[in-house]
Amino acid sequence: MAIIVKKFGGTSVGSTELIRNIAHKLAAEYHSGDGLVLVVSAMAKTTDELFGLAYGISKHPSRRELDMLLTAGERISMSLLSLALMEEGISCISFTGSQCGIITDDKHGNARILKVNAFRIHEELAKGKVVIVAGFQGVSTAKEITTLGRGGSDTSAVALACYLNADKCEIYTDVDGVYTADPRIVKEPKLLKEVSSDIMLNLCYNGSKVLHSRAVEFACKYGVQVEIKSSFTFAPGTMIKTEKIENNKEDKMEERVVTAIAHKDNLTRYSIAYTEQMQEALTDWHLEVFKYHLDRGVLELFAETKYVTEIDYVLESKGIKGFSKDYDLCFVSLTGLGLGYDPAFLGKCMEVCTPFKVMRTICTEKSVELLMPAAWVKEAVYALHKAFVKDK
Amino acid sequence: MAIIVKKFGGTSVGSTELIRNIAHKLAAEYHSGDGLVLVVSAMAKTTDELFGLAYGISKHPSRRELDMLLTAGERISMSLLSLALMEEGISCISFTGSQCGIITDDKHGNARILKVNAFRIHEELAKGKVVIVAGFQGVSTAKEITTLGRGGSDTSAVALACYLNADKCEIYTDVDGVYTADPRIVKEPKLLKEVSSDIMLNLCYNGSKVLHSRAVEFACKYGVQVEIKSSFTFAPGTMIKTEKIENNKEDKMEERVVTAIAHKDNLTRYSIAYTEQMQEALTDWHLEVFKYHLDRGVLELFAETKYVTEIDYVLESKGIKGFSKDYDLCFVSLTGLGLGYDPAFLGKCMEVCTPFKVMRTICTEKSVELLMPAAWVKEAVYALHKAFVKDK
Repeated sequence: MAIIVKKFGGTSVGSTELIRNIAHKLAAEYHSGDGLVLVVSAMAKTTDELFGLAYGISKHPSRRELDMLLTAGERISMSLLSLALMEEGISCISFTGSQCGIITDDKHGNARILKVNAFRIHEELAKGKVVIVAGFQGVSTAKEITTLGRGGSDTSAVALACYLNADKCEIYTDVDGVYTADPRIVKEPKLLKEVSSDIMLNLCYNGSKVLHSRAVEFACKYGVQVEIKSSFTFAPGTMIKTEKIENNKEDKMEERVVTAIAHKDNLTRYSIAYTEQMQEALTDWHLEVFKYHLDRGVLELFAETKYVTEIDYVLESKGIKGFSKDYDLCFVSLTGLGLGYDPAFLGKCMEVCTPFKVMRTICTEKSVELLMPAAWVKEAVYALHKAFVKDK
Repeated sequence: MAIIVKKFGGTSVGSTELIRNIAHKLAAEYHSGDGLVLVVSAMAKTTDELFGLAYGISKHPSRRELDMLLTAGERISMSLLSLALMEEGISCISFTGSQCGIITDDKHGNARILKVNAFRIHEELAKGKVVIVAGFQGVSTAKEITTLGRGGSDTSAVALACYLNADKCEIYTDVDGVYTADPRIVKEPKLLKEVSSDIMLNLCYNGSKVLHSRAVEFACKYGVQVEIKSSFTFAPGTMIKTEKIENNKEDKMEERVVTAIAHKDNLTRYSIAYTEQMQEALTDWHLEVFKYHLDRGVLELFAETKYVTEIDYVLESKGIKGFSKDYDLCFVSLTGLGLGYDPAFLGKCMEVCTPFKVMRTICTEKSVELLMPAAWVKEAVYALHKAFVKDK
C-alpha cells in the first residue's frame, strides 16, 4: 500500500465549503486504495484570532498556555475535515500531534521535532482508515503541549512522511505551485514543474511563502519527495526534487541561470550595538527573524514588521537600549546555482536596479539578494524577472 | 562497459616517480575491463612557471597568447602519463582539450564550457584504449585555444563524465578526501565518507580547496557522481552525493548539525565607492574574487592577496581611484543545513570566537561565515571544530 501524506493549509480549510470540496476530491483517491494521512492547519485567521484573545488578556502571556490555546485551532479544522469525509462515506480518524507521537523539545511557541512515534497511524491505516493529523503541534518529552512556530504544519507533514516512509508528501495550498516570481507582480510567470530542494531552500530563505524553509530542510535531510499543489484544483503542481533536475546536454552546460525570484517585504531593520548583553540575548534568541548579520560591532536584524513589538519587548527586557530601527524595507532575491560567484552578474543586476535604491547586497553560491526600500518591491521583481528569467 | 573518468591534479603528477606510481596502480583497474578516461593537470608549479615566463616578457600579456602558452603544461603531463601507461603494457592515447571536443566561449583565461563533442573518446574506448585528456583547456567556437581558469581541470573532468554518461568521476588529489576541518589545523578531523553536493558547494564557496566550486556546480546540475580520493593510496575517499545523505531516524530529526568547517585566508578587502565607473567595471568583471557585496554605496571585494596586482591594474585602467585595501583577512565558515536560520547559533559561534576579533558575519541557509584577521585563522578553526563538530 502506497502511503501519501497530504497537508492542507489554513486558507485551504478556511471555510466549511472549502473543507467539503476537499473531502469530495479526496473520496476518489481513497477508493484507489492508497493509505492517506491528512495533516491540517487551523482554519485561516483562527490562529491570529486566538493570539488576539490571549493578548487581550495578558500583555506577555505564558508561552505554555499560549500553546495550549493555539492548538485548539487544528482540533477544530481536523474534526471538521473528519466529518466531511464521513459524509462522503469514508472511514477516518483524527489525532492531535500528541496522540500521533510528534515529540518535540520544550521550546514553547517554536519547538523543534525530536522524533515521531506514529504507530497509531500505522494501526489505523492498516484498518483502511484515512488518518487526519493536527499540524503545527507536538508534545514535549515532559508531556507538555508545544507548537512548532509559523509554518509548522508543513514541517509536521514532511516529518510524518519521513517517519511513515511515505511515497510522497503533497502540500496543498492556495496557489498552483512555485512560480518564477510572484504572480501578483509579474504577469504570467512560469509555473515550475520541478525545482531542486537546494534552490527551493534558497527561495524560502529569501521570502517565498509557498512552503516553509524548515519543511524543505527536513525534506532535504531525509530525501522526502514533496509536491506543492492547489487545494482547489488538485492539479499537478511543483515537485521538489532532491536529485538532479535537468540534463539537457544541448544547453550551454555551464551557463548560470536564474531559476526564480523571491522577495520579502514589510521588513524592519534593527541596528544594535553588539554588547555583552546583546551577545547573551542572541545566544538565547527564539524569535523569528528573516536575516541577520554582524558588521563592525553592529548586529543587524531584519524582521517582519509584525514581530517588532515582540522583539522590542525582548530587547528591552534584557536591558538593551540604544538600538535603531528602519522600517519599510524589502529583499528581492534572484536564485540559481552559481549566481553569487559571478561579480559581473551582480553588476548586471545593479544595472537593472539603478532606479531602486539598492542599499545592500548579499551574494551566496546560489543567490544574489538585494536590500531596498519596500516601495520598490514590485517594480524591482518585475524588472529583474524580465531581464533574467528565461523561457517564460 | 562502465566508464570511469579519473582526474589527476598537479601535485598528483608532480614528478615522473609519481606518474609511474599512478600508471602502476591504474594497470590493475585497466585489466578489470572498465573504460578509463584520465584527465590530467599540468605538473605542479608548471603553470606558475609558465606565467612567470610570460610576465617576464610582458607586463600585460595577451590573454590569447597566455592561453596558448599555458596549455603546454597539460600536454607535458598527459604525454608522460601515456608513456608510463605504455610501460605497463597498456594501450592508450592522449588528446588535447581541442582534440576531444571541449567547446568553450571566447573568454581567454577564464572560459566557460558550452558543450562537449567527445566522439573521439568513445571511438578509442571502443578499441579498448585508455584515453588521456588534457584538463583545464578547450577550444572556442572561433577555434581559438582557451583555458578554463583556476581549478579548470576539475571542471573538465566532471564535464567529460557528464557527456560520456560515466558511471563515476574520481578526483585524485594529494589528500584522502574531505575532512571536517583542515588537518593541518585540527588534529585528527573526521574524513567524511560522503557529503551532499549542496554542502560541498558551500564548503568550496567558503574556501575548501579540495575541489573547485565550478566542478561541484556542474556535478549538481547534471547529477554526476564524484569521488575525491588520494592519488597516492587510491583508497576510498569522499563521495559527493547528489541525493539525501543521512536517514538515521533515531537522530534528533531537526537538530542542526555542523557538517564541516572551511576557511580561506590570505584575503585582501577592497572598499570601493560604487560610482558609475565601478558599475561598468563590475558588469565587465572577469577576475577571480572570493566574496563580494555592496553595502551603502561601497563595493567590498575580498580577493586572494595573490590577485591584488591584477585587480589594482584593472581598477586603475578603468580610471577608478580612491579605493582602500585591508590586508591579512580570513573567513572561517561553518557549513551545515539550516545553520544560518538560527540567531542563537550565531550567538554561540560569537561566544566561541570572543578572542578572535570577528569583524563581520554572513549567515546563509547553510552556513555561518566569519570574517576576522588572518592571524586568528588556526585558533578559530580549532576552537569552532571543538565546539560544534560532532562524532570526531
